[in-house]
Amino acid sequence: MSIYQEKADQASKLLHEFDLDCWLTFARETVVSPDPGIELAIGSNVTWPSAFIFAKNGQRIAIVGRYDVPSVDAYGVFPTVISYDAGISETLIAQLTALNPRTIGLNYSIDDKTSDGLTVGMYLMLQNILKGTPFADRLVSAGPLLSALRARKTAGEIARIKAAIDTTEEIVNMVTAQIQVGRSEKDIGDFIHGEFKRRGLPAAWAWDGCPIVNSGPDSAVGHGVPSADIHIAPGHIVHIDLGVQQDGYCSDIQRLWYVRRPGETTLPAEIQRAFDTVRQAIREGAKALRPGVKGHEVDQVARDVIVDAGYPEYMHAFGHGLGKACHDGGPLLGPRWERYGNTPDMIVEVGNIYTLELGVITSAGYVGLEEDVLVTENGVVFLSNEQTEMRMI
Amino acid sequence: MSIYQEKADQASKLLHEFDLDCWLTFARETVVSPDPGIELAIGSNVTWPSAFIFAKNGQRIAIVGRYDVPSVDAYGVFPTVISYDAGISETLIAQLTALNPRTIGLNYSIDDKTSDGLTVGMYLMLQNILKGTPFADRLVSAGPLLSALRARKTAGEIARIKAAIDTTEEIVNMVTAQIQVGRSEKDIGDFIHGEFKRRGLPAAWAWDGCPIVNSGPDSAVGHGVPSADIHIAPGHIVHIDLGVQQDGYCSDIQRLWYVRRPGETTLPAEIQRAFDTVRQAIREGAKALRPGVKGHEVDQVARDVIVDAGYPEYMHAFGHGLGKACHDGGPLLGPRWERYGNTPDMIVEVGNIYTLELGVITSAGYVGLEEDVLVTENGVVFLSNEQTEMRMI
Repeated sequence: MSIYQEKADQASKLLHEFDLDCWLTFARETVVSPDPGIELAIGSNVTWPSAFIFAKNGQRIAIVGRYDVPSVDAYGVFPTVISYDAGISETLIAQLTALNPRTIGLNYSIDDKTSDGLTVGMYLMLQNILKGTPFADRLVSAGPLLSALRARKTAGEIARIKAAIDTTEEIVNMVTAQIQVGRSEKDIGDFIHGEFKRRGLPAAWAWDGCPIVNSGPDSAVGHGVPSADIHIAPGHIVHIDLGVQQDGYCSDIQRLWYVRRPGETTLPAEIQRAFDTVRQAIREGAKALRPGVKGHEVDQVARDVIVDAGYPEYMHAFGHGLGKACHDGGPLLGPRWERYGNTPDMIVEVGNIYTLELGVITSAGYVGLEEDVLVTENGVVFLSNEQTEMRMI
Repeated sequence: MSIYQEKADQASKLLHEFDLDCWLTFARETVVSPDPGIELAIGSNVTWPSAFIFAKNGQRIAIVGRYDVPSVDAYGVFPTVISYDAGISETLIAQLTALNPRTIGLNYSIDDKTSDGLTVGMYLMLQNILKGTPFADRLVSAGPLLSALRARKTAGEIARIKAAIDTTEEIVNMVTAQIQVGRSEKDIGDFIHGEFKRRGLPAAWAWDGCPIVNSGPDSAVGHGVPSADIHIAPGHIVHIDLGVQQDGYCSDIQRLWYVRRPGETTLPAEIQRAFDTVRQAIREGAKALRPGVKGHEVDQVARDVIVDAGYPEYMHAFGHGLGKACHDGGPLLGPRWERYGNTPDMIVEVGNIYTLELGVITSAGYVGLEEDVLVTENGVVFLSNEQTEMRMI
């Protein structure tokens, strides 16, 4: 069974749990405007306005333009693929009339970015099509279903994410030999890009900004581009944040090296303390991460460790979902800030996969770590090999 | 000046032409949900909810999350980049209050798929933010402006599209030696993918379906995947449809070969007639393609040639925009079918770039051609080297 069929079967079951009669993905030109629902459980790109219907009674019906039929067929998710030429309206109304769903869930969500694929233009087109039918008033958000579908990883998804992490760690191990005084951040970034290319793997996020490479105290922390003007020097912390997309699923880890000054044998105390504090925050956060907790509760545990140690709090979430997208949907292990919507209040479940990430700034550069974990009934399992001590150069 | 700055300057001017006080792109997590407006004139990916404001008075203001600032800065489109941590609301309302626009154009369009990036979730978020302010009632579609911005190619865009076409023709010329009896469609597709990879170029549309390769009469015409089970044989027409993305811009052409049967020296009459008819339709359509005509008028000219010659009409548009997206927005050279919305009624303008494509089915396979042209004041200039006769194997 393909990963799309695996997720489609999960979606069919979720219709009952969320008491939704029908899940309707309505999309076009998905190369330009990808729909996260299609990417997760349907697979095929489409050109013309297309309707993908999952009904609570188990039926699955795709209505697509003539030339999109072979591709939708190839993914094997829809036993029924109906083709049209001039327009989709008539067929769509006929199919909905036959199903007569009380509720039709659409792919939009204010809170969960990876459940929010429907564009305003397509929503207006759908409203125009359904005008005068009983279905116009039955449109609702399928957001909660989509969040669960995305966040509850199947066995096939867990295996793919683990494989992407393994590849990333293999590349990280190769980076150590590249960390040499005089090389620029860009040199390290180019080396990592070379390894991505050699394996034919896209970066886990935008190519130019993945990996992030920071050497020393003058490097900007954030979603930037490795600098050609900042060179590795003795006394620098070298920090990378990277991930790959492998087989459609992402990894995302942060790793650290310290470049010794002449005569230095151990890590300076300031950096050792920073490293230990970051490690402690990740470990305590991981302990708090169990099914049934709310995302913000986990974030608070990690945040308290940092703040109690006298460091400024990190200005992002402790952990985000990891899956099809590097910033995957579902519950966020983050503070209740406006920009996160309700995602920090969502409940952590078995099968969720998270990154756990944070850092503090020192006089030698940024000390940031990020690990990837799977939530099980008994707490988390680390999918990444935790970095437990600073790598010394 | 970067291509993004070139397009951003064009956008600033278009605000006057379309009498829009403000163009607002409101987006998040653009790696998952790319916004065609950002891809065209802004450049940077962003993670958190972000507002990109182009005001009629010339001001450009970006409001983005802290870690997205370096990337937005790097693209150089926004002199003012305001950073936030917890939420965007307060800053966004303050900036709009200072500008006090009568109209705020958003990235949505029922008709033009490449002007339709705003998701329903983000639209609802924006409505929530603006609730109780005068701006809640000033939201309109920026669709017409975005269509013009996309369809009126700048000098930099024309050069990039031409370069992408040149590369594609270089690859097509290499394909001729690969067309050998016994090879599968997939073999040809793999060869072309190899050439894409060697150049580090993405396909112009979804990788699995680009190129399309059809050999002989049993191959499905459409957006399918090259078959491992269909092998090139004497008497086959081999048809490919392919394009690359180079420097952010696309090519899209179709090319043809005929594999002679033993003893055959010339093309069979049936195929010659089909080829000549397809050529004539493209030539006459190209002649009709001038600034000021409506898209459907051009389509009709080409369609009439095919139908008058006794072939069934093609079930797609004669030509689509070509640019940042392979199926680019703006006026469509297509029939007035429901699925095309108002795009066949839009007016062709100087600077538009189109594919011209159509085909007919013969007993030897699909005879389809596609050329790429630029609309000038005096009619079209071909950017592709037209295929004027069947290539013989």
